[in-house]
Amino acid sequence: MKTYNLCLLGFGNVGRALARLLAAKAEEMRAEFGVAWRITGVASRRLGWGVAREGFDVGRLLAGEVASEASPAPREVREWIEAARGEVVFETTSLEPRTGQPAIDYARAALESNAHVVTANKGTVAHAYAELSGLARERGRRFMFEATVADCLPVFSLFRECLPAARLSGFRALLNSTTTVILEEIERGRTFDEGVERAQLMGIAETDPTYDVDGWDATVKVCALANVLMGETLGAEEIERVGIRALDAMHVRAAREEGKPFRLLSRAWRDAGGRLRASVRPEQLEPGDQFATLGGSSLAVTFELDVLPGLTVVASAPNLKSTAYGLLADFLNVARDEGKEGR
Amino acid sequence: MKTYNLCLLGFGNVGRALARLLAAKAEEMRAEFGVAWRITGVASRRLGWGVAREGFDVGRLLAGEVASEASPAPREVREWIEAARGEVVFETTSLEPRTGQPAIDYARAALESNAHVVTANKGTVAHAYAELSGLARERGRRFMFEATVADCLPVFSLFRECLPAARLSGFRALLNSTTTVILEEIERGRTFDEGVERAQLMGIAETDPTYDVDGWDATVKVCALANVLMGETLGAEEIERVGIRALDAMHVRAAREEGKPFRLLSRAWRDAGGRLRASVRPEQLEPGDQFATLGGSSLAVTFELDVLPGLTVVASAPNLKSTAYGLLADFLNVARDEGKEGR
Repeated sequence: MKTYNLCLLGFGNVGRALARLLAAKAEEMRAEFGVAWRITGVASRRLGWGVAREGFDVGRLLAGEVASEASPAPREVREWIEAARGEVVFETTSLEPRTGQPAIDYARAALESNAHVVTANKGTVAHAYAELSGLARERGRRFMFEATVADCLPVFSLFRECLPAARLSGFRALLNSTTTVILEEIERGRTFDEGVERAQLMGIAETDPTYDVDGWDATVKVCALANVLMGETLGAEEIERVGIRALDAMHVRAAREEGKPFRLLSRAWRDAGGRLRASVRPEQLEPGDQFATLGGSSLAVTFELDVLPGLTVVASAPNLKSTAYGLLADFLNVARDEGKEGR
Repeated sequence: MKTYNLCLLGFGNVGRALARLLAAKAEEMRAEFGVAWRITGVASRRLGWGVAREGFDVGRLLAGEVASEASPAPREVREWIEAARGEVVFETTSLEPRTGQPAIDYARAALESNAHVVTANKGTVAHAYAELSGLARERGRRFMFEATVADCLPVFSLFRECLPAARLSGFRALLNSTTTVILEEIERGRTFDEGVERAQLMGIAETDPTYDVDGWDATVKVCALANVLMGETLGAEEIERVGIRALDAMHVRAAREEGKPFRLLSRAWRDAGGRLRASVRPEQLEPGDQFATLGGSSLAVTFELDVLPGLTVVASAPNLKSTAYGLLADFLNVARDEGKEGR
């Protein structure tokens, strides 16, 4: 049985859901995987750099009681990981889609401190995948990011573990649920703003829904998928990006009545010259399109493979627990691989 | 670089597709996975127990030239594996759904000869999963079967590798494509027999389609999924099984026109007492059901998990190459894990 020191960098909705899930699955993790853990570090803008070498009490942590024992108090991420003796850093700070900062700096610092990094922040994968995965290899650590693109829907681990030697030639995906919810509300006769409100009530849109609505969220996810699964560095600026703001409400309703609803679709493909291309834009789905049956917060990707014309994975109604599970699964995979290597 | 001696037990459509795919992916397997191979054994009812210790020429093998060098010629599976020095046995003989024989005896013999077993034969998993996986553990070998339920659609590796500590509470699935094709043909105004013919032309139905039509194929797949993913031994006789033969053609057409087509659905769930229950029977899909958009030979499973309300995987239009890839992926996973353990 190995006990891991865990550091939670970011303690918003996702960080808190992770703490809850870790507690709920603790017994199972011990019994089935031989993995134990304690949360020795918790950091957020509000809480500062909290440290408890014997582990925080999760219940009190969730109640907001973060009594840090570190003296002197750490002043930045490296000092914090060192004080907490962190072995796995869960990075769940919020996304800045154009640069991926400060998450990238955090991930780099964690790897340089010889901790594994498990992130829910797609900016790190979109903007610094090559650097961070290279650094991880150098240090004999892991850079893991299953939760970044589609909550707990396995996409990266699917290719890494289940689809060895399969070649991905392109994909088509619903990667942003906020825009689906807004379009559905417009189809039902409501306004764009009412759609935004509904997505916020469901807890899937940010307070500022610009990143979702203008296609930034989906674009960063497409970059992440292309970088990791297709072996090419695709910058966000190379992706044709059209949001849903300019869609006319009457047009959206008429399209639905015709059975060809608009959705914000993400695509990647190789052009005639073999160059990787990608787009994020509203498209009308054909009647009978599998994606047309997926409402609400559902996410889906169809992969085109050399060994199978279409492999589709769909997450129906994922929630915060699902995102937290994406992080937990990454952690268990890291622990399992360490176990194998150590045998 | 490790060179594996491979034995192909069964050399029908799937075995031949596997040989072709191995040849097509050989360079990639060497370069990316450090895995080389030679086919040292090929056996079928027609060919007998063929052995070539330096490896068969795949081109000549596919052309039907199986010049076996073994002398004396092996008379049964153990002698054959020994003569071929087999390290991985690919078992692709045809299914006998009620007993799983002789595939189970073959798999047992292969494991007892210290070979890994990779099978496309669902009977082994439905009827002898506990025994064969136990035997494999004892011998330090692997019993792998990704191709048994849904061609190359990852279901077993998905749970094993991508979904650690996720609890499966039930599933709903389209596991038999022959019945989908028959029902689609009837919906289009053709007869049951014309539907069978179409499925045979597509290469997905057996010459005797009884196993498909009467729900045996799907039932054996449900057993396999329940045994492996839900940790319970469910016998085929415990599953409510109703085929599509008794469906009235007019009724099938009317249901489609209503937007609620019949499909042979497979389900597993826990009843109020916590007991695992399962059924395979024609059910009408609700309008907007994701499965209603899946035609032809597509296969799909929706898993209900404690960490995600619905995770659906869909294989669109899988073909023989897809099934062969399921076997190849299993082989690469075995080789990768051996590599890790050996480090």
